[in-house]
Amino acid sequence: MTASDAWLPPGHGRDAVVLLSGGLDSATALAMAVAAGYRTHAVSFEYGQRHAVELEAAARVAAAGGAVTHRVIRLDPDAFAGSALTDASLAVPEVESEGIPVTYVPARNTIFLAYALGCAEVLGASDLVIGVNAVDYSGYPDCRPEFVAAFETMANLATRAAVEGARLQVHAPLIELTKADIIRAGTALGVDYGLTVSCYQPDGAGKACGRCDSCRFRAAGFRAAGVADPTPYQA
Amino acid sequence: MTASDAWLPPGHGRDAVVLLSGGLDSATALAMAVAAGYRTHAVSFEYGQRHAVELEAAARVAAAGGAVTHRVIRLDPDAFAGSALTDASLAVPEVESEGIPVTYVPARNTIFLAYALGCAEVLGASDLVIGVNAVDYSGYPDCRPEFVAAFETMANLATRAAVEGARLQVHAPLIELTKADIIRAGTALGVDYGLTVSCYQPDGAGKACGRCDSCRFRAAGFRAAGVADPTPYQA
Repeated sequence: MTASDAWLPPGHGRDAVVLLSGGLDSATALAMAVAAGYRTHAVSFEYGQRHAVELEAAARVAAAGGAVTHRVIRLDPDAFAGSALTDASLAVPEVESEGIPVTYVPARNTIFLAYALGCAEVLGASDLVIGVNAVDYSGYPDCRPEFVAAFETMANLATRAAVEGARLQVHAPLIELTKADIIRAGTALGVDYGLTVSCYQPDGAGKACGRCDSCRFRAAGFRAAGVADPTPYQA
Repeated sequence: MTASDAWLPPGHGRDAVVLLSGGLDSATALAMAVAAGYRTHAVSFEYGQRHAVELEAAARVAAAGGAVTHRVIRLDPDAFAGSALTDASLAVPEVESEGIPVTYVPARNTIFLAYALGCAEVLGASDLVIGVNAVDYSGYPDCRPEFVAAFETMANLATRAAVEGARLQVHAPLIELTKADIIRAGTALGVDYGLTVSCYQPDGAGKACGRCDSCRFRAAGFRAAGVADPTPYQA
């Protein structure tokens, strides 16, 4: 029983699709999957005004973390905005885009996991890994264990491979961990958190502002974990 | 009890998101939703080498069918292709793109419904409508009632509105109908099937070849339904 057995069942070299954002949590989930013996395929999403530095961070984390492949899927930035209305029907758009931040993706984890399922279908992968965390994100329904379990049930009815007996598992190894727990676990697995970006307003080099909510939450996690914070901060 | 009650529960003016492909089935599902009293929001997808004429057909069907809004969401054509691999990790791509048609979308209905769920979240819609059909597509796991039911269960755990009590329903009103049943139902509801495109190789004006599998299946449906086939065929 190694440390990683606590988070993910042994992979025995099976292919797993891992959602990778470039942040701290998903970097840890990737490390757990690699440590558990999966061949990992990282998947990131490009959407809205998301900072390019996050995708650069995801690419660095994928490479440093031992992902076998990494792909970036572009989401239509207008998918949910008022401007996506066509001319088919309306003189006056009835979908409000005000109030919806450009980086907000409705039904976010459902869409991300649906794409991961598509990747799994193409790759013949049996496992999906998502770094959600019910403790930190208690306000988000799609970060809870019951959501992940329901997605897994649905996924096992959705693809030919699953229906034919190649049961698909959705793992959320961080789901009960605090930020400090996650940092301790990832540090034990050798994750270089200096490669990850959590800041809402990083500079062009990916350096963190140190002031936004995400930065402060992350810094508090390192303090609580008793781990030196490797985050590159802006001068 | 009107005819439409057999297929969808009464909408009472509630907003419903309807997946609309430009084909015969989804045009019928839209008509059923409108007849049942929903304010319908049609959603179509643009992907791969899909013919523009199908999206033009979807726009015509949305407008003629009484959809309140219609939006087209672009799917990343490289999402599942080998070329989507980034340079993060690999010298040799390990995802094969050969054998996967460019118009094939893995985990297709899961991804389509995930986007529909996102639209429902933005619109405050309580209902999703998908024109899948377990009879015609018996080989596809994600066209079966148990898949649709599992997606609905998952969706009700995925969004804040659903968790707070605005129960979301996923309707698949065609799921037990044959092609002839669908054509009879849609004809009774006034669907103009001449606006729809089923052909795999339509010409630039959307006229059908009359020879491909999809054309022959569709023509057989009209014959079995005893309805004149309004499909515009190539000369």
